[in-house]
Amino acid sequence: MSGRIEVLYHVRGEAKSIEARAKGIAVEQSVEMPLEPIDDPFVLEETVGRVNDIADLGDGTFAVRIGLAAITTGFRPGQLLNMLFGNTSLQDDAVLVDATFPDEFAEAFGGPNHGLDGLRARVGAKGALSCSALKPQGSSPRALADIAARMTQGGIDCIKDDHGIADQSYSPFAERVPVIADAVATEAAKTGVATRYLPSLSGNLDDMRTQIALARECGLDGVLAAPMLMGVEQFCTLKKENPDFAFLGHPTMGGVRMAQSFLLGKFFRLLGADATIFPNYGGRFGNSKELCLSLADGARQSWMGLKACMPVPAGGMTLDRVPEMLEFYGPEVMLLIGGSLLSTKERLPQETARYVNAVRSFGNS
Amino acid sequence: MSGRIEVLYHVRGEAKSIEARAKGIAVEQSVEMPLEPIDDPFVLEETVGRVNDIADLGDGTFAVRIGLAAITTGFRPGQLLNMLFGNTSLQDDAVLVDATFPDEFAEAFGGPNHGLDGLRARVGAKGALSCSALKPQGSSPRALADIAARMTQGGIDCIKDDHGIADQSYSPFAERVPVIADAVATEAAKTGVATRYLPSLSGNLDDMRTQIALARECGLDGVLAAPMLMGVEQFCTLKKENPDFAFLGHPTMGGVRMAQSFLLGKFFRLLGADATIFPNYGGRFGNSKELCLSLADGARQSWMGLKACMPVPAGGMTLDRVPEMLEFYGPEVMLLIGGSLLSTKERLPQETARYVNAVRSFGNS
Repeated sequence: MSGRIEVLYHVRGEAKSIEARAKGIAVEQSVEMPLEPIDDPFVLEETVGRVNDIADLGDGTFAVRIGLAAITTGFRPGQLLNMLFGNTSLQDDAVLVDATFPDEFAEAFGGPNHGLDGLRARVGAKGALSCSALKPQGSSPRALADIAARMTQGGIDCIKDDHGIADQSYSPFAERVPVIADAVATEAAKTGVATRYLPSLSGNLDDMRTQIALARECGLDGVLAAPMLMGVEQFCTLKKENPDFAFLGHPTMGGVRMAQSFLLGKFFRLLGADATIFPNYGGRFGNSKELCLSLADGARQSWMGLKACMPVPAGGMTLDRVPEMLEFYGPEVMLLIGGSLLSTKERLPQETARYVNAVRSFGNS
Repeated sequence: MSGRIEVLYHVRGEAKSIEARAKGIAVEQSVEMPLEPIDDPFVLEETVGRVNDIADLGDGTFAVRIGLAAITTGFRPGQLLNMLFGNTSLQDDAVLVDATFPDEFAEAFGGPNHGLDGLRARVGAKGALSCSALKPQGSSPRALADIAARMTQGGIDCIKDDHGIADQSYSPFAERVPVIADAVATEAAKTGVATRYLPSLSGNLDDMRTQIALARECGLDGVLAAPMLMGVEQFCTLKKENPDFAFLGHPTMGGVRMAQSFLLGKFFRLLGADATIFPNYGGRFGNSKELCLSLADGARQSWMGLKACMPVPAGGMTLDRVPEMLEFYGPEVMLLIGGSLLSTKERLPQETARYVNAVRSFGNS
């Protein structure tokens, strides 16, 4: 007998029909057929979903808690996502808000290889980390390496490829990554800061394995990876195959009406993201402060014995917001400022240094 | 110089700010940084997204047409999806409605291996096809094979695994598929109908390759595959590696605020789905008739020189709706009726035959 995942959905509806709707979700996310013809007691007891609780939230929505049999997931990430939200993602009245898992999921998935503490240790930091992004796509490997070099001169902790930089003709992975890795290593040797460059993975599982192998040859130990785009199975596979690598999760294609606090904060962590990028409040994505904090807390608070995952707020952030963001998130965070830093052009090393200092000095004043 | 994809988004907003918002999407889905510091003419001319048109739809939304440089996709499916909707999927005001592609995409992706006509030819049909699903998950391979045998006795065209049937302990793929394939082959030899069984793929790319190889050994020539769950890269890779196989696309995790008519009708076809399952009107998914017809038409009408993809309406359908559905969709369709057929229990072969006859007799009366 296996345990149950409890999934919390917020469902728009009316009091008179919510119980039937909740049962509908329990069936949709398990056996997906009428229960009447089922006579196998194993199926009825061990795989059919159950309505655990329904609470009226008073704003036309209901908090519906469904118990899904852990065994139906096969303890694989793709099937887990399929059972958590698969077909219900197509029904407009329901949003997946959260889920709690039996302990066996921590063992099966393992969470981050390195996590929040591992990322800090790599750059010798105890407080918040700084991160920026290489842009714009369309730039040559040399142009991107030049930007990376100047950010490294400023002593930044992490530099990632823009998630739109894949394996295009104007900047193929195999040409781009060695040049950028070399530029970062050269400049980092001068600053004494162990700046990390995380190239962006793309393509199918074979391609991404090749990319990680090349990254390792270039002396790198981390990558940018988008679980919802590559498929969560590929993400977990790569994470497990490369225990020396850190995985920075990117939220692209995350708009699936799953609460970001669950998807980007907890689910990506369970899958094994060492750090997770999410849209910050006050930027161009319209997230609230509450959502951001609950997402960050989901990533870093004690949970299932998994390593903490580094929250990485991003999206239209500016240097003058650094103190405010650090005040808000505290030191267990990596800030990601891309476009506004790149806008400083020839002053990039100096502005990067200003950014890094603002991050480093937080809590030490 | 490369062509441009034109993407149509419906964006909620106000007249005074829509132009700025449209520019924001064009930037988000391309270089994702302020344009001011960009001085590389190649980037400005060849990779930055462009606002092609904005039209007020009069209901608080605007039709925004953005031209995205084809070259930024690297002509790979994952990066294509990333550029079409990646980060914008996280912004609540925008829905992706449609996209038109330069001809080079038809060549790069190839679309269905067999498509609508190939699926019909396999079962010797000229009209609509019938399909059902093996459920409930939790059943043993033997129990599922028994259901499949009885459906085959009824002369059904296609039987697919429920998309929730993966590789769980109670019915592992390697145990389940040979038993079911054998049961279907045995009964099909008696009916003379070349009934197809399509097992459901799950796991990472390696797992799915192994599964297809096993399916082929069992004499099968098609699978059920969920592009949004496995990652579109894996879907395309498997489709290209297995030209003898047909791929039935499943919509699970398709709730990404991309119009179903585009995602399930056209995009899955471009990726190579031979058939595409979608939620029918009047079922449990709340799709309108207009949406269903536009989705089906997107799958089967002449488009980019690609083979037509078989539309497969599904989701809470009942046998008594067969004539209505065939009247609505016409004969270029495969109906998928699962739960209500399974509810007939011991009358499964007879009810399957009734279903098949209703489908076969359409247009021949």
